[in-house]
Amino acid sequence: MTVLECPAQHDETAAPTEFYFELLHTSTKSRARVGRIHTPHGVIDTPNFVGVGTNGTLKALDNATVQQIGLQLMFCNTYHLLLQPGVEIVQKAGGLHRFINRSLPIITDSGGFQVFSLAYGSVADELKSRGTKKQEGHVLKISEEGVLFRSYRNGEKVLLTPETSISAQKALGADIIIPFDELPPYHISAEALQQSLDRTHRWEERSLKAHLQNRQGQAMYAVIHGGINPEMRKASCDFLTQLAFDGFAIGGSMGKTKQEMHTMLSQTMDHLPTDKPNHLLGIGDLESIDLCVPLGIDTFDSSYPTRAARHGVLLTNQGPLKIMRSDNATDFGPPEKGCACPTCQQFSLAYIHHLFKAKEMTCMTLATIHNLHFMVQLMQSYREKILNNEV
Amino acid sequence: MTVLECPAQHDETAAPTEFYFELLHTSTKSRARVGRIHTPHGVIDTPNFVGVGTNGTLKALDNATVQQIGLQLMFCNTYHLLLQPGVEIVQKAGGLHRFINRSLPIITDSGGFQVFSLAYGSVADELKSRGTKKQEGHVLKISEEGVLFRSYRNGEKVLLTPETSISAQKALGADIIIPFDELPPYHISAEALQQSLDRTHRWEERSLKAHLQNRQGQAMYAVIHGGINPEMRKASCDFLTQLAFDGFAIGGSMGKTKQEMHTMLSQTMDHLPTDKPNHLLGIGDLESIDLCVPLGIDTFDSSYPTRAARHGVLLTNQGPLKIMRSDNATDFGPPEKGCACPTCQQFSLAYIHHLFKAKEMTCMTLATIHNLHFMVQLMQSYREKILNNEV
Repeated sequence: MTVLECPAQHDETAAPTEFYFELLHTSTKSRARVGRIHTPHGVIDTPNFVGVGTNGTLKALDNATVQQIGLQLMFCNTYHLLLQPGVEIVQKAGGLHRFINRSLPIITDSGGFQVFSLAYGSVADELKSRGTKKQEGHVLKISEEGVLFRSYRNGEKVLLTPETSISAQKALGADIIIPFDELPPYHISAEALQQSLDRTHRWEERSLKAHLQNRQGQAMYAVIHGGINPEMRKASCDFLTQLAFDGFAIGGSMGKTKQEMHTMLSQTMDHLPTDKPNHLLGIGDLESIDLCVPLGIDTFDSSYPTRAARHGVLLTNQGPLKIMRSDNATDFGPPEKGCACPTCQQFSLAYIHHLFKAKEMTCMTLATIHNLHFMVQLMQSYREKILNNEV
Repeated sequence: MTVLECPAQHDETAAPTEFYFELLHTSTKSRARVGRIHTPHGVIDTPNFVGVGTNGTLKALDNATVQQIGLQLMFCNTYHLLLQPGVEIVQKAGGLHRFINRSLPIITDSGGFQVFSLAYGSVADELKSRGTKKQEGHVLKISEEGVLFRSYRNGEKVLLTPETSISAQKALGADIIIPFDELPPYHISAEALQQSLDRTHRWEERSLKAHLQNRQGQAMYAVIHGGINPEMRKASCDFLTQLAFDGFAIGGSMGKTKQEMHTMLSQTMDHLPTDKPNHLLGIGDLESIDLCVPLGIDTFDSSYPTRAARHGVLLTNQGPLKIMRSDNATDFGPPEKGCACPTCQQFSLAYIHHLFKAKEMTCMTLATIHNLHFMVQLMQSYREKILNNEV
């Protein structure tokens, strides 16, 4: 069985900037706000989109390109990196930034989301009645200590606990890390949800304690839970905001509809301090961003824009553009007029349509470049609108 | 049934340079030679490697990157472009260079190789006993006129003849084009090979005639056939060198072994003029290049370096490097020390190994960049060695 030991400090030579949040402006029209999160690897302007690079790369892109496009914060998944290549290798490389060649900020999660998705199936699976996907063979034991599971890569048993998750995240060395939490199933009794919440709070407290033993210039965001139960969300805020977290992520079930999510977030945001940054976990489609920016959400991570690109959908200011539509075959202009991304500057929609039809993987890279650039520009325009009190 | 009509001249505004070949130096040690092929889209230094971009892109790369790496000549396949997106669309885009955003030289083939591979199976299939792959449903009729086949894309009947192939290649507008030829099966009687050769010569003459009606600044290379029969190769050279071709490609069966190929090429090169460029069709592995440069071959096209990259093999001056080898997991240096390619400059072998293990498509792009850069550098070093009479 692999129990992760607490590693030595990762090797970063540049003198790290302390993590802090600057609130620059709150809209007079909503709770939308513009701020700056300062980290050892630079600034994240908020509100902002966080690209998901599960295995240390955004799919179909390399990290040099991602930086050129201007993505200020990248999300990497501890669960995946723990199993491949393993944190020891990342640590030997000098930390995640060096390993993946990214000089800008990175956030890692705890691995909790993935191991509980293995155990219970994801909330989305449940809501879409895709079954619980319970993989008994993978998750061996869930206890107060943590979760014992079997690596899908080499069959080894791995114990993920608050302490081992933080140990792994110390070795990875992201700018922002996340405490180990429990992801309860969506269909759960109030009593069971309360029990899960209490355990999550105990685990987050243990995570914070492990983190504070060796800050390493990293910031830790608590994860607010409580599903769509307003009292529990409030209780979660009340409990976690009393602790020395640097920011607050909102996790757990967001409800079945965007309206349910909006209601839950609106209530939850009442109980979060305005002088610390917040993050909405796993939500970053355009409609949700538009709904949630006015609530004061600072950062959103989602694989939606990159996944949409690989499935042939370009995000544009005129709405989603389906590359495979037959009338695009003779559109010799750029995919989006006026767009400054390398794809639109260099290639026509007709050519990209052709590459998709010819099943050339190049088209996935070109489409992903556009969509990521779109998200960077979109969030820039939200910030401008908030500064002008238009949002 | 689609019969391709002869299109109007493709729209290229820059005043084209006439095609011509400059022979700069022939080694005192072998027949290896250094030259420059001048085309309307710039110079090709020879000997050189020609990257294969079947559908108008090198797999896993975009054409801007390919140009940055310095690939001077790109090979596109008329058969594929004919069926997707269709030559009319490329023509509407202003020609292939504009459609795919490449400002450097392009060569297209006639489509003959692909339609005869459909009919007979490829020579490689035959030699490896993979069956003849005869797809009766696709090739409907082979006659003196040409080949009637059914498009795998839309089921339409397409007639490929010397005239329609040249018409398509005029619409695409590559700098160098190829006459329509027959690719006979490898296992064929001398009599049948002679009949095939005679027909190929008639087809090449018809192709040249169609080409000369509207040169459009394009050059046409004949294709020398004759399999591994020295008399027929000589007869093919004798026949085709009397015609107004701008260069000579060597096609057809090259034999079962590299030694057979070397013998055949050595004999064939005796019968080709030294004041015109030549091209070896579909051969570009490192061993073959090393064997054939001393014979005076000018250009080599092959998908080997890009395909090897996608299969996890990096070409290096120390030999092929299998990315997945487990000892690469902790090699934090560049894939090849001293290599100036963007991949080696930015990413470690350990990271690329990780991306392959994690099945991230990004790794295919990074590996392809390296291998293409390797080929560009390799050919540059051959040119230097020839100039120094070391090859």
